[in-house]
Amino acid sequence: MKRGFGSDNHSGVHPDVLKAIAEVNVDHAMAYGEDEYSAKVEQLFKQYFGTDASVYFAFNGTGANVLCLDAMTRSHHAVVCADTAHIHVDECGAPQRITGAKLLTIKTPDGKLTPELVKTQLHGFGFQHHSQPKVISIAQPTELGTLYTLNEIKALADLAHQYNMYLHVDGARFANAAVALGCTFKQMTTDLGVDALSFGGTKNGLMIGEAVVLLNPKLNEDFLYRRKQAMQLCSKMRFIAAQFKAYFTDDLWKRNAEHSNAMARQLYNAIKDEKGVDVVYPVQANGVFVRLPREVWTRLQEKYFFYDWDEDDNVVRFMCSFDTTAEDIDLFALTLKKLLSNHK
Amino acid sequence: MKRGFGSDNHSGVHPDVLKAIAEVNVDHAMAYGEDEYSAKVEQLFKQYFGTDASVYFAFNGTGANVLCLDAMTRSHHAVVCADTAHIHVDECGAPQRITGAKLLTIKTPDGKLTPELVKTQLHGFGFQHHSQPKVISIAQPTELGTLYTLNEIKALADLAHQYNMYLHVDGARFANAAVALGCTFKQMTTDLGVDALSFGGTKNGLMIGEAVVLLNPKLNEDFLYRRKQAMQLCSKMRFIAAQFKAYFTDDLWKRNAEHSNAMARQLYNAIKDEKGVDVVYPVQANGVFVRLPREVWTRLQEKYFFYDWDEDDNVVRFMCSFDTTAEDIDLFALTLKKLLSNHK
Amino acid sequence: MKRGFGSDNHSGVHPDVLKAIAEVNVDHAMAYGEDEYSAKVEQLFKQYFGTDASVYFAFNGTGANVLCLDAMTRSHHAVVCADTAHIHVDECGAPQRITGAKLLTIKTPDGKLTPELVKTQLHGFGFQHHSQPKVISIAQPTELGTLYTLNEIKALADLAHQYNMYLHVDGARFANAAVALGCTFKQMTTDLGVDALSFGGTKNGLMIGEAVVLLNPKLNEDFLYRRKQAMQLCSKMRFIAAQFKAYFTDDLWKRNAEHSNAMARQLYNAIKDEKGVDVVYPVQANGVFVRLPREVWTRLQEKYFFYDWDEDDNVVRFMCSFDTTAEDIDLFALTLKKLLSNHK
Amino acid sequence: MKRGFGSDNHSGVHPDVLKAIAEVNVDHAMAYGEDEYSAKVEQLFKQYFGTDASVYFAFNGTGANVLCLDAMTRSHHAVVCADTAHIHVDECGAPQRITGAKLLTIKTPDGKLTPELVKTQLHGFGFQHHSQPKVISIAQPTELGTLYTLNEIKALADLAHQYNMYLHVDGARFANAAVALGCTFKQMTTDLGVDALSFGGTKNGLMIGEAVVLLNPKLNEDFLYRRKQAMQLCSKMRFIAAQFKAYFTDDLWKRNAEHSNAMARQLYNAIKDEKGVDVVYPVQANGVFVRLPREVWTRLQEKYFFYDWDEDDNVVRFMCSFDTTAEDIDLFALTLKKLLSNHK
Repeated sequence: MKRGFGSDNHSGVHPDVLKAIAEVNVDHAMAYGEDEYSAKVEQLFKQYFGTDASVYFAFNGTGANVLCLDAMTRSHHAVVCADTAHIHVDECGAPQRITGAKLLTIKTPDGKLTPELVKTQLHGFGFQHHSQPKVISIAQPTELGTLYTLNEIKALADLAHQYNMYLHVDGARFANAAVALGCTFKQMTTDLGVDALSFGGTKNGLMIGEAVVLLNPKLNEDFLYRRKQAMQLCSKMRFIAAQFKAYFTDDLWKRNAEHSNAMARQLYNAIKDEKGVDVVYPVQANGVFVRLPREVWTRLQEKYFFYDWDEDDNVVRFMCSFDTTAEDIDLFALTLKKLLSNHK
Repeated sequence: MKRGFGSDNHSGVHPDVLKAIAEVNVDHAMAYGEDEYSAKVEQLFKQYFGTDASVYFAFNGTGANVLCLDAMTRSHHAVVCADTAHIHVDECGAPQRITGAKLLTIKTPDGKLTPELVKTQLHGFGFQHHSQPKVISIAQPTELGTLYTLNEIKALADLAHQYNMYLHVDGARFANAAVALGCTFKQMTTDLGVDALSFGGTKNGLMIGEAVVLLNPKLNEDFLYRRKQAMQLCSKMRFIAAQFKAYFTDDLWKRNAEHSNAMARQLYNAIKDEKGVDVVYPVQANGVFVRLPREVWTRLQEKYFFYDWDEDDNVVRFMCSFDTTAEDIDLFALTLKKLLSNHK
Repeated sequence: MKRGFGSDNHSGVHPDVLKAIAEVNVDHAMAYGEDEYSAKVEQLFKQYFGTDASVYFAFNGTGANVLCLDAMTRSHHAVVCADTAHIHVDECGAPQRITGAKLLTIKTPDGKLTPELVKTQLHGFGFQHHSQPKVISIAQPTELGTLYTLNEIKALADLAHQYNMYLHVDGARFANAAVALGCTFKQMTTDLGVDALSFGGTKNGLMIGEAVVLLNPKLNEDFLYRRKQAMQLCSKMRFIAAQFKAYFTDDLWKRNAEHSNAMARQLYNAIKDEKGVDVVYPVQANGVFVRLPREVWTRLQEKYFFYDWDEDDNVVRFMCSFDTTAEDIDLFALTLKKLLSNHK
Repeated sequence: MKRGFGSDNHSGVHPDVLKAIAEVNVDHAMAYGEDEYSAKVEQLFKQYFGTDASVYFAFNGTGANVLCLDAMTRSHHAVVCADTAHIHVDECGAPQRITGAKLLTIKTPDGKLTPELVKTQLHGFGFQHHSQPKVISIAQPTELGTLYTLNEIKALADLAHQYNMYLHVDGARFANAAVALGCTFKQMTTDLGVDALSFGGTKNGLMIGEAVVLLNPKLNEDFLYRRKQAMQLCSKMRFIAAQFKAYFTDDLWKRNAEHSNAMARQLYNAIKDEKGVDVVYPVQANGVFVRLPREVWTRLQEKYFFYDWDEDDNVVRFMCSFDTTAEDIDLFALTLKKLLSNHK
């Protein structure tokens, strides 16, 4: 399958990552994260997030998200999130099955929660009949490719703490957010009061590698047991650690994220002024959401793979990846333009 | 860390596996198992298990076991297993948390269930107060390195079906069993009436790769949703598929398993007649369980990593791996002998 | 505490019910529903719902609702309901904790789902990442005191079945609906294709007594085990059966429900034309929802107990019960009117 | 059905209890335990268990047990219990489904745990692969009708606390234990370090009424939410409170328990010396466990209802109740003796 715009997990593994995997493939190592490679990479994470941060590797994004929520809740709690949140829409109900907790979903214009929106769900505290709100969960960037500013995240963290709640960030594409905002991971989390982060690697060039980063030390209690019980404990952990080692070496995470963001920007610029093209969300990371005439996007799907986002509304999603090339964009934009002009 | 005898998951990845991973690292591929590589490897599994078999990749052994049990039970059911079973002892309670079902454990002399032993738990059918037995779960080889004969598996499958139950096999080291018995995977499962198999790869040279093999087609219903919800769905699936591709190419599974079994046999032969050495279970796969004077094994642990198996009984476990060498064994046996002679 | 308007479960037990309890209090009886009293009352239910109906007693409304949903779902399923549904708002997350399934909530003008509203949640069938919609759950009457017509229920049942889903009815106040619509229980369920009903008794004069009525025979499988495991199996079941015996004797259910509905109607008539009173939902059963000046309802709460319904919107709820008297209403209306006139 | 020896829940309700129910059946009362009757009875419990004790009513014994365990565990924990424990054998897996925690069962000679037996399961602390032992759960009296002495309970409480664990007591027949030991409830719990108690009422003359008594104040956190979510919150709570009011009035609990214990003693004395009768456990509460020739007990079951306890071993259980009469015992013993003499 040639390069398309379906998802950043359609792309393969960055060569540096494969090399790092090969490099740790010597001799024996303790299993289940007790090896020296994992220990070193855990230290690396502390450099990026502060010394109070703890990292726990996981297999996939759903696993990382659920582990975060599991550390923050018991089953009588509720998690407030956007109704477009991955944890609500795309995890086949894993969060509520595994934690038992309820998701309270909120309609948003752009995938972003605000204190005002969240407050509509903050009631019933102390009332035994109501699930008790305990977590605000946001995605950065959101599933719609939009970004929270640092101040916006701070406001949500403050709100959460004011209500004795936690702030969780689903960072499946967290590197894309960091480069877009031009800030460090720490500035985007620890410094703002984020309690737990699902830190994605797979969508930005790793093979199989996600991480739970707990910034609130209280959340570490029992975490090792919970990860194991939730089937997210890798035996040959050095091979996940090695991927993150590569990720942090020579700023691979940054290079990859900058590139995929830039490709999205290039695509946006190439098509935004075309007649029939309606870009529906600000292009702030590596995704472009566009309303197109139905005939155009169904024809385009014959040549390229990408997902309908909202079929009823004729909105589709183009995702750029670390291996998307400028030529890919040129050709894709050209193809789209042709279909548009034929359509007129 | 040099090569020890702690676990077959302390060893790294077989070079053929890394090569296969690199080979599929081209262009884009559909995520979540809908890629062409996964499709081909699924066909390979059918060659090994029969056309009715379905394969679903998972991240780890706990994941594969829990998915099997989840496909076979609802929460009011019970799973009958040995009290040494991995699903009971070493998965931090994942099976009962995720499925809600109860484990009914049975004391055994050698890790193996028999129809007679199982029948002690087969009662209360139709009685609303009792968890309803629904699965017999065995490990092949067992956690004690012992093997079921084909007839013994058949007898358990027949018993299960007679009671409208299923037979699950935890095959974390299934290749070691197959080479030890000199039979095919199909002969050890499909032909005997096994309903579901956790087919391990990681302990025999893969990096991150296990598979659920459903031999009873009824179990496929809803399986995809259940896997996703249980956080065992890999996004870049081609990289798990590639590992299994390598596993089946030029009989890598067989070569690796024959080697680790042979190393265990060599170790057994080297030490079995030493005074102070008491081999407590038949050495039929790649593990050797030995009772030793406490001073000896604690001194030996200063030089080699391996696990106490039953500290109270002074039994330790030596696991051989695909990368254990004859020289490793010689040196280890020599060291052990020296400590034994010093001890006398 | 004198009679207020807080809830129909603030009232006590109808004398006929206490008498029936005393009558079965002789000798011994089998426990757990295997007694002759329970058997007879189960037959009574068949008279009311048709011979295919099965009844299972439960302790409370949350129990009955959860048991219904549990019989209809596995954890990867979703239940579509109004965002005002008791199962979403008032059961502290019991349905999702016990079943593992997801609730998909829909905003409604009056607590009632329509096929059009439900369809907004009917997508993603067959997509492994999405919880699979399996149940439409409605309340009759709704939590807002409104009623579905028979045709409206039929349309939802048809929609459910068209999508291979089930229709569940939360009938915590089902008798109030039946008398309001002037129809039988069977006409409101079996004849329309309802699959399962939570049939309430406690709010209409029983002490502790709810029932799950399964109209779709497929749902009976495993139900006894599921009820026991969900802690809803009463040991001295004859004392729940006796309550329902009384409920069906001399139409007690009907007399009680007609009375509480009539009281709500009387209250409505007494206050609806008052200045400052805004009745926000049609008064179709035994509840009256009214927007009042805040000062008025807070002053009124000093004299009578009733619940704020939507504090932000100054809406309060007045519930009438089988033991509410015409004098209660007169006095209450008078008090309210006085406060209103003082307020002007 | 005439009086038999099947279970103490085959008997009805003590008249004092029905009277107490009728007495609170006036006017309105707040629902869900916020009424004045419940408040008063909660104070009564403090008189019996000490001022630190908190009481929460529940519907049935399984509910009370599960709520206790739920307050003490998260899903990665384990509960150590006898393999004859009600929570293991007779609750259809409710504890592990609702809490997610694992039960570690121990074979005992007489249904009683000892520190030595419990210690066989106290390992793996801190090891992420093992469910972490967190609760020792015993029944007083046990399911085999045997009793722990106060010192034996104390030893288990001390052991539990030494390992940072809790001690739970399943007191489905707790009154029978108290009268047998001639001690107060407080002496048998609070004074020994018991953390939580399932305090049964139904089997000793109540209708529907069990109570969770939390003696360790730490366990109160979140309990109200957990009870509601576990579907054990009664709406018209005054009618459960009233039952316990009666239970504590004029020592009804004591009179009933003394009587049923005495009846068991009378039965024991009447049959113990008969040839063919083998009383298999000490008769310390209200149950008598007897090995009988199979033909004898099957013939006896044609005349009286009672349960096989261990069919393979020809052991049956005779339970006495608060309403068992001396004449019942005489007649039953006579019948048994006749069958025995015919059998010889």
